[in-house]
Order: sequence, then C-alpha cells, then structure tokens
Amino acid sequence: MLGTLGAALVDIVGREHVITDADVMASYLVDWTGRWRGQASLVVRPGSTAEVVAVVKTCAHAGVAMVPQGGNTGLVGGSVPARGHGAAGPVVVSLVRLQRRDEVDVAAAQVTVGAGVTLARLQGHVADAHVGLAFGVDLGARDSATVGGLVATNAGGIHFVRYGGMRQQVAGVEVVLADGEVFSRLDGLAKDNSGYDLAGLMTGSEGTLGVITAARLRLVPDLPCRVTALLGLAGTAAAIDVVVALRRDVPALEAAEIFYQEGLELVCRHARLAAPIAGRWGAYLLVECAGTDADSLAGALFRCLTAAGVDEEATAVATEVAGRRQLWAFRERHAEAINNLGVPHKLDVSLPLGKLAAFVPAVHQAVAGVAPEATTIVFGHAGDGNLHVNVVGPAPDDDGVDDAVFRLVAELGGSISAEHGIGRAKIGWLHLTRSAADIAAMQAIKGALDPHGQFNPGVLLPPV
Amino acid sequence: MLGTLGAALVDIVGREHVITDADVMASYLVDWTGRWRGQASLVVRPGSTAEVVAVVKTCAHAGVAMVPQGGNTGLVGGSVPARGHGAAGPVVVSLVRLQRRDEVDVAAAQVTVGAGVTLARLQGHVADAHVGLAFGVDLGARDSATVGGLVATNAGGIHFVRYGGMRQQVAGVEVVLADGEVFSRLDGLAKDNSGYDLAGLMTGSEGTLGVITAARLRLVPDLPCRVTALLGLAGTAAAIDVVVALRRDVPALEAAEIFYQEGLELVCRHARLAAPIAGRWGAYLLVECAGTDADSLAGALFRCLTAAGVDEEATAVATEVAGRRQLWAFRERHAEAINNLGVPHKLDVSLPLGKLAAFVPAVHQAVAGVAPEATTIVFGHAGDGNLHVNVVGPAPDDDGVDDAVFRLVAELGGSISAEHGIGRAKIGWLHLTRSAADIAAMQAIKGALDPHGQFNPGVLLPPV
Repeated sequence: MLGTLGAALVDIVGREHVITDADVMASYLVDWTGRWRGQASLVVRPGSTAEVVAVVKTCAHAGVAMVPQGGNTGLVGGSVPARGHGAAGPVVVSLVRLQRRDEVDVAAAQVTVGAGVTLARLQGHVADAHVGLAFGVDLGARDSATVGGLVATNAGGIHFVRYGGMRQQVAGVEVVLADGEVFSRLDGLAKDNSGYDLAGLMTGSEGTLGVITAARLRLVPDLPCRVTALLGLAGTAAAIDVVVALRRDVPALEAAEIFYQEGLELVCRHARLAAPIAGRWGAYLLVECAGTDADSLAGALFRCLTAAGVDEEATAVATEVAGRRQLWAFRERHAEAINNLGVPHKLDVSLPLGKLAAFVPAVHQAVAGVAPEATTIVFGHAGDGNLHVNVVGPAPDDDGVDDAVFRLVAELGGSISAEHGIGRAKIGWLHLTRSAADIAAMQAIKGALDPHGQFNPGVLLPPV
Repeated sequence: MLGTLGAALVDIVGREHVITDADVMASYLVDWTGRWRGQASLVVRPGSTAEVVAVVKTCAHAGVAMVPQGGNTGLVGGSVPARGHGAAGPVVVSLVRLQRRDEVDVAAAQVTVGAGVTLARLQGHVADAHVGLAFGVDLGARDSATVGGLVATNAGGIHFVRYGGMRQQVAGVEVVLADGEVFSRLDGLAKDNSGYDLAGLMTGSEGTLGVITAARLRLVPDLPCRVTALLGLAGTAAAIDVVVALRRDVPALEAAEIFYQEGLELVCRHARLAAPIAGRWGAYLLVECAGTDADSLAGALFRCLTAAGVDEEATAVATEVAGRRQLWAFRERHAEAINNLGVPHKLDVSLPLGKLAAFVPAVHQAVAGVAPEATTIVFGHAGDGNLHVNVVGPAPDDDGVDDAVFRLVAELGGSISAEHGIGRAKIGWLHLTRSAADIAAMQAIKGALDPHGQFNPGVLLPPV
C-alpha cells in the first residue's frame, strides 16, 4: 500500500527506492543490538541531494516526520523510529545511496564524500589515492557505519586519543534543512571564521536538525610504522597512570584501550584464543603508537613504560600486522562475544580520568544491586575516560540497570553518553548532567532550525 | 552622569567598576588599530559570574544592548560599540576582572580559567604548574588578548597547523545567556555526546549569543625541543609545495608562516635588523618543528626539505631560543612595522592552498586598481591558507579596498574571514561566501538564544 505520500515519493526516487513491504522494511526498523525496534509508514532511499530536498519538502508538506538513517549501527535507538506508529508513522529516510566520493584534495588534506559512504569505503578511497593520507577516525563497525551517521552521532572510536572524534575531522557539511533549503559548507577551508560553526552544531545532532547529505573531512598523515603493546596491570588506577604518562611523553600514542579479566576470558572462550599474557591481571591496557620511524617509536614507548614501572614480563609486543591484529582481537572481539551472551544493555559513558578507578568496582556493585543475575563486562577507551558498560540479563525494556549506572556516572562527574549519543535510550536521564538552562538552550536551537519538529522526534531532547 | 541604569550597575559591581568618565571610557571604545571607534553609555566591569548575571538581567530589563569586551585586541570591530549612539548607547561589559585560574588538571590535561585571563597569563599559569603541559594556541597579541575574546573569536594563531585554533582547545564554556541563566559545561570530559555542541557554537560567536565568563581548555604536551628554519623560495607556489610536504611527512611541524620581500624590508628598516638570508626571494617561509628529541626532529625536517628541493644556501636555521627568536622577529614584527606606516585595513582571509599562488599577485593588482597609492603588505599562516592582507593608505572608512579584496577571495573559493571574525567590518560581504540559507540558519539561532537582540547588535550577522 503506497498511499498518497508513497506515490509522491515514488515520483521522486523511483518505485524500487520506496519500501513498503513489511519484511524488507524490517531491517530498517530495528538496531543491530535488537534492543531498539520501531515502526514506520515506509522507507525512502533518495539517490542525490536534490532527491533528499524533494523528499523533505514532500514529507513536510504531508506533516510526516522523518527518521534519517545511515548504516543503522547506532546503539541508542537514534536511527530507528519509535514504536506504536504503524502505517501512520514516520518515514525512514535511508541515505545509503549517497555515494559521492570526490578526489582526495592533497593540498588541503581533505576529501568530500556522500553520507552513505561506509567508513571502510572512505578509508579505502583515501588509501587508493596513494597520497600519504589517511582518515583519523576508526571503529569496529567500519564496514557498515556510514559517514552521515558518523557525523550525526559525532562518533569517537579507537584513535580519539590522538586525532579526536568526528567533530575534529569535519571541515564542512551539506545539510538539507527543514524548509528544504540546502545549507552547504563544503569548501574545506582550514580556517574560516565567517559565522557560527553550523557544521560543528550538525555534528552530533543525531538527525534532529536536518538531513546530512555529504561531509568534507580532514585527513591525517598515513603513518607507516606501528608498535602495539598489551600490558597486564594491577588495576584501573595503574592503567590510568600509564595512560597519563603516555599521553604526555609519547605524542605518537594512537590508542589506549582498557579491558578486564572477565572480558578477556569471555573473548578467549568465544573466539578460541589463548591468553596473551600469563597470569590474571586487574586491568589490561592495549596501547598503540604510530609514526614514521619504528626504532624511535619503540624507543619512546618503552622508555615511557619503563619509567612508569610496567612489568616487562606482563607485556606482549607486536610490530608486524599479523601480530598487531592478534593483540587487537582481544579488544575488538568483545562486542561480538558479549552479543553472543544475549541482548546487551550497552551503556556508553565517560568519566574524568581521575574517577575511573573508583567507577569500575562501583558500577559492578550498582548493577548487582538492581540485577543480581546480570553479567557485566566493562571495556573501553582509557585514553578518553570512555567506558562501555555492557550488561546482559535484564530485558531490553527494563531500564533499572541503565538508571543505576547513569546515576553513578552523574555522581562522579561523568557523562551518560561518551560517543554513542542520547538517541531514544537516554533522554530520561539527560537532566542528570545537563542543567535546565542547557536543555532549554538546546530546545531553542531545535525549535529555530526545525520549527515543526519534523526531524527525528523523540530523539536527543525531551519535548518542550 | 550615572543615570538609573548606572546606579543599578553600581549596586552590583561597586562604583569603581562603572566607568562613565569620557576620558577613561575612551580606550574601551576604540580598537587597537584605531579603525573602529564607537560610543557607549558606560563601561561596566563585573568581577564574578554572579555579577555578570546581575548585569545582564539589569541591562535586559532596561532594554539596553551589551557589548562584551575582553582585551580589545580584535581586528574587525566586534569588541567596540558602533558609532552614533551617544549616552543612550549600549553598555560595554568588560570581562577583564574574571581572573579565575583553577589548578591544572593533569590527568585530563585541561585547565579552567576565567574570561579575563590573558593568553600570556594562561601560558604562564600552565608552565608554572611544571606538569609537562602547554597551551596549544599562541599569537602575537598574547599579552593583551583574553581567554574570553580568544574563545568568542575562535582565534587561530601560529600553531594552528599542528593543534588547530581555539575551537579545538575548548573543552567547555560557562556562558551567561540572554535571560540571565548560566549555561555551564566545565566538566572537561574528553568525550561527551550528550547534546548539541553548545561550547563549539559559542566559540566564534563574537559575543552575539551570550557572555562567556569562563572556559575549560585542553592542553598539549610541552615539547622541549624546537628547530626553526627560515627559507628563501622562488615564490608562493614553491612555498606551498614545501608546506604540503612538511604537513604530510613531518608530524612535528608546528608553524609554517609566509611573508614577502616588501614586508621583510619594511621590518628590517623598522626594527633595524639585517636581512636573514642573502638575496631577494619570491617568498619567505618560516617553519618550526617541536618534539622530544632534537636530532630526530632536525633529521625529519631536513630530509623533507632536501626532498622538496629547498636551497640549503637560502636557509637560516636555529635551535636555541635566542636564534629562534631572531628568526621569528622577521615574521612577528610585521604588524607593528605596518602600523607604523598608518592605520591599516587588516584583511584577514583564507584561500584553498591550491589557490594561494594565484591570489597573491592578484590581490596586489586588485588593490592597485582601487587605491593606486596604497601600500600592500601580505603575510600569514601558509600552513592554513590564511593570509593577512594589510593595506595602508585608504581612509579607515573607505571600504573600496575591502570590497575589491573580498570579491577576489570569494571568486577563488576562499573565506572573507580566516581567524579574525566578521565583526562590524565584514557584514556587508558575508553574502559573498555564505548562502541565504546559511545566513538564515544563523539568524534563526541568534533569534532563539538572544530573542531581543541584546548581545552585540550589528556584529557578525545582518539584521533579519
């Protein structure tokens, strides 16, 4: 059943890109953890910025809300509609067909790509240019996460400690606004102080202010040499001491990831891997440096680790690709090993570095207090104070665990969202760390740019 | 004459901090180039965030506009009121008394400081902590420019090529909004995706959205070794080739500044310096690298310069402080040497790197076309495509030269403001590089956060 709106959209994008069949729609209406499920009247897949403009105007005219969607790898329900709308529900606007990939601008060290390009494809596009450049953000979902979604959620990832997240890479965006006007800043100037930072505002706005159709992204030097080390340490406090020393003394530091004994054992069982280091340790820290000269890289790293008192016996080191991949597997395969246990509550939080050591035991206790049977696995990006608290056991819609964890985070001066966003998952707790004035200012901006609330209602902000 | 408003403000800040004497007020009403002069009813200098709140509420209640002011070193008239208001004019809110300087947070590598702290004082405060950290932004006006103004104008400076500008350093801000509510995000979390990037929006908003009272700033490793080289090159194109190679192959690159024969000769005459390199060159490039190991630093720099074909005979090198200062003087003393010629039109623009070589001769031609008697001196931050076109000769209010230069910039895909902002100086040309949709979106945001237009009217945006 197309209906009047569907027919109008078919006129814009063609019949094959308006999806109304429930079975085909299904994959657009649930996130990959399975925790967030919703309903929509249809899915539309525009193939160009001009088609996005026409879709936005048509939906706005019909008074129908839009849910922009990229690779649908978000973890807070921001890219799937809410439940209970049925056929009268919003339209999912899938941007995966926006595959623009401009030639790499070597002089500017930037590239312009469409919202639908996956991170892996972007990385490949830059590598294929063979101009000594690379993209500074990397994360596990690289094969499905798209540039539009990465920008919309201000994705972080494993190289944040060196290059920052998406906001630091975004030199400009092209966005279709609520009135169908296109706001474009793709000129890619390194320095441009002519007006408010609208590109930065769009980055992390979770589809609530407009539809991002393309981005101009900064590139970083493609560094040929890497040294990776996995360290067994007494606990979180020792790991943070090492991280602080590395950040200060080793500018080549590119990643500093933390995980724990229970996560390591889960990964080893799930992926049939042998333990990388003898013994049981209070915390594991995976660090990686990148540079142009392997010797000076390793020298700087080991000088710093020695000065920090790291036990050489509890250190596994790799400099070649295969060995480095083996070490990374212990960290990167956490997500799949956890999903294998059940539908997780994935609680992405950040803390002041000085509070991490107190937080880790406290969060286990907090979860046990409300869900004694739950399995809690913690891992994350130690360099940024960003932990992923994964809780398996409680039902997807039982938010008692979320509440306990977020209250603890707020108490310790942290954020209820480090890199995943607020989405639908965390609106109820936004007031824990955002003042009324702060939320009111955000609502005023939303009201100014999307006066009829047509973009992603029910995401990021509580209603005014 | 205090008047009702003045009396109310005296009740808040005390008599000595409400300035009504014309002679004392004068320095608050003219920028340091002398090009921008205005009038105000009085100057008020609150000493705390709470006093700023009371001042904002009082002025709002009286319907009087406010011009926030820091060190008043801005170059586009954004920190001085407009002309012609007289005693009924706006109130200048000077933030220089906001001198909060929190202890450096070593674990987070951040520090919180008040809006009135000068850049030099911030640098000293961080250095005095002796924790191996430094502030990533540096610029010539460091002794008078304040943190509030640096944030409000998203200042760039000489280390942008490595660390970016203020927006990259701002981890959070405290802002007094139009309704007197305080919006505070000073928790300094490395990663925080809970809502729109209001701190980023405030950065570069030029005092039009609220009064910035404090900032949480990121710090960078304090690198002990520096190598500085001044290169004589055939021209701009050759200089840009060197910059692109350095940016790609030498991650330690911290500065890449360009100037020209006429500027060098002016500085040598003004400061009584001998020429640093024999001969006359089409462009001079001052490059500086910073790291932890002097040998590998110099090695990487000279390998790259040799590969780029730079003439060793036309290269002056310094690694010690005194020698490096001598080389920097040729670049840094441009501003004072030019001011010595007369009141300059300081046109801060940025171009795509690939267009700089075409722009430099074209801008001399463009200026000569409208002001044949003018002296044009160009210098700037080659690493970022940011040039300062200084024109001495035309009267301060003769904007024919501005118009010619900005039109050329727009034609070549550049920005009419790289790092100085729009202020009052450039509003008339904003449409050259910002679309109607873009300006409308900015006006909508201004309207949402400052509905009565009480902050810095006539700055940055044309009236709706």
